[in-house]
Amino acid sequence: MRGAVLHAPGDVRVEDRPDPEIIEPTDAIIRLTATCICGSDLWPYRGVEKLDGPAPMGHEYVGVVEEVGSEVRTIRPGQFVVGSFWASDNTCEICRSGYQCACVQRVLMGTIGTQSELARIPLADGTLVATPAMPDADLVPSLLAASDVLGTGWFAAVAAEAGPGKTVVVVGDGAVGLCGVLAARQLGAERVIAMSRHAPRQELARFFGATDIVTERGDEGVERIKELTDGLGAHSVIEAVGTQESMMQAIRSTRPGGHVGFVGVSHDVALPGDELFMSLVHLHGGPAPVRQYLPKLIELICERAIDPGKVFDLTLPLDQAAEGYRAMDERRAVKVLLQP
Amino acid sequence: MRGAVLHAPGDVRVEDRPDPEIIEPTDAIIRLTATCICGSDLWPYRGVEKLDGPAPMGHEYVGVVEEVGSEVRTIRPGQFVVGSFWASDNTCEICRSGYQCACVQRVLMGTIGTQSELARIPLADGTLVATPAMPDADLVPSLLAASDVLGTGWFAAVAAEAGPGKTVVVVGDGAVGLCGVLAARQLGAERVIAMSRHAPRQELARFFGATDIVTERGDEGVERIKELTDGLGAHSVIEAVGTQESMMQAIRSTRPGGHVGFVGVSHDVALPGDELFMSLVHLHGGPAPVRQYLPKLIELICERAIDPGKVFDLTLPLDQAAEGYRAMDERRAVKVLLQP
Repeated sequence: MRGAVLHAPGDVRVEDRPDPEIIEPTDAIIRLTATCICGSDLWPYRGVEKLDGPAPMGHEYVGVVEEVGSEVRTIRPGQFVVGSFWASDNTCEICRSGYQCACVQRVLMGTIGTQSELARIPLADGTLVATPAMPDADLVPSLLAASDVLGTGWFAAVAAEAGPGKTVVVVGDGAVGLCGVLAARQLGAERVIAMSRHAPRQELARFFGATDIVTERGDEGVERIKELTDGLGAHSVIEAVGTQESMMQAIRSTRPGGHVGFVGVSHDVALPGDELFMSLVHLHGGPAPVRQYLPKLIELICERAIDPGKVFDLTLPLDQAAEGYRAMDERRAVKVLLQP
Repeated sequence: MRGAVLHAPGDVRVEDRPDPEIIEPTDAIIRLTATCICGSDLWPYRGVEKLDGPAPMGHEYVGVVEEVGSEVRTIRPGQFVVGSFWASDNTCEICRSGYQCACVQRVLMGTIGTQSELARIPLADGTLVATPAMPDADLVPSLLAASDVLGTGWFAAVAAEAGPGKTVVVVGDGAVGLCGVLAARQLGAERVIAMSRHAPRQELARFFGATDIVTERGDEGVERIKELTDGLGAHSVIEAVGTQESMMQAIRSTRPGGHVGFVGVSHDVALPGDELFMSLVHLHGGPAPVRQYLPKLIELICERAIDPGKVFDLTLPLDQAAEGYRAMDERRAVKVLLQP
């Protein structure tokens, strides 16, 4: 099969890789309908995360089940399925508490690589959620978004306790931040302030339900949020970048007793204890337990109540993955969908 | 009046200070029945927090109202009152959300100093809670504990979401940590693991409801907690020290999706973003909104349902405050009550 492999920073190649096979009896093999490039893929692409030899890339996926292992009970060949970037059994104590991303048996899909024609999905019964029927083609991008960016934005909004009567700030105008805007509105937030200085992203934020746009960043951005919230700060802040500046901007934009939901993968972040202490914010985040939200998100998408697939502003054949990485690296694209 | 003043690290003197007067019409003057020395008073006493000239000390207090300003409506002379270390109006939006410690009008009582015979209490109607009647003398230590250490331990337990079915770990065996044990049990926690290597503190932890004692610290302490929790970590962890080691021990002892309530005043703490991200814990803490809990705590104390006054293991006349500081600094006493 064809699959994307990162050989060195900036060097992604789509090449022949061995077809995946059932290894564990709980595995499934899926044929990908669509896959995509994640903002987090840019960390190793940019050389910020060290590579340890050529690495298969990708962890987002939707597709049709081709084959299942002997112990797979609920997932069947022919089903259209969506899964998260963590494979999880969905039965352990941690999964049952809603944190499938920390399943005691978890497998990181990024180590398998789903920017490819086929993929092995561990713990298939726990990991995969089948759609009620074969979805219309135009729903595929939204279902693919549910696999990571929508699920991650949703978790951020839940962690930030977005809800009725709340003012929610979203720091980060990438695909996850934009999905955070959508999630905050779906959860009933009264006001959603998107922080963005890019016109096309501002437009998408408004489409997803942002009520205000703030273009300032850092201390000026914090000041602007204070002005918009009677000097108190927002009830809820979604952080979807992962840098020191964005984390501090998020914490400082939150009122005492408010909630920060952070999902930007942390890089070189050190939170000062004294400021965190005095801020009195709630802080929760990490790799999202997307699996928890998939049934709900698939339902909303299939009912056409939400359209998160709009985050894909560039679609390329899988073989042109290298161009997709370049487009995202140069911020020419918000998110790139790849067609195997 | 007599009052304690810190002149330099290690140099606490009880000396004549001017009697306080009503400054704002919302002030009250109280005559202290009892006051005490806080673990946080040791930071400037030890020179870790810089002094900017001689500083009046103390922020914990119970006493009888002597006089009130012209705009005080509910508090009356003659009432026995308990207040928190933050004066707060209890009416602003932040107070109403339960974060009186971040009241938009807040005044830090430590800047006024309550290790004294009399004290001015700003925003008296918001800050003070009167007991139903003049309390029996033996209840005074417990009511004094409510002013800070009990209220702070209670907040930590609430922030850590201690409750039925939960395993709660308490890092720190000072008065706040011990009150955190008491609070966790009152909130219904099934199992409370106190981390302590001091026999008298272990005994008090057990008296307050600890079900297990762990003597190991740091990585070994974390390992021991994992062993006691099926390898998963605790649901809830109370952090009541404020150092890098104690914060990391707390975070690492918590299961994914679990809650850390941190109330140790942070000193030279920097939380690594990547570890916090992957830990998937909820983090909440800071200076406790003690005012929120005072009515409930006073009720429990007056009903004799709890006995937090047991944290005071040394009682001295106010004039011997210097000996009280030495006893706490040398860990000869858990907490020192001062009688004006």
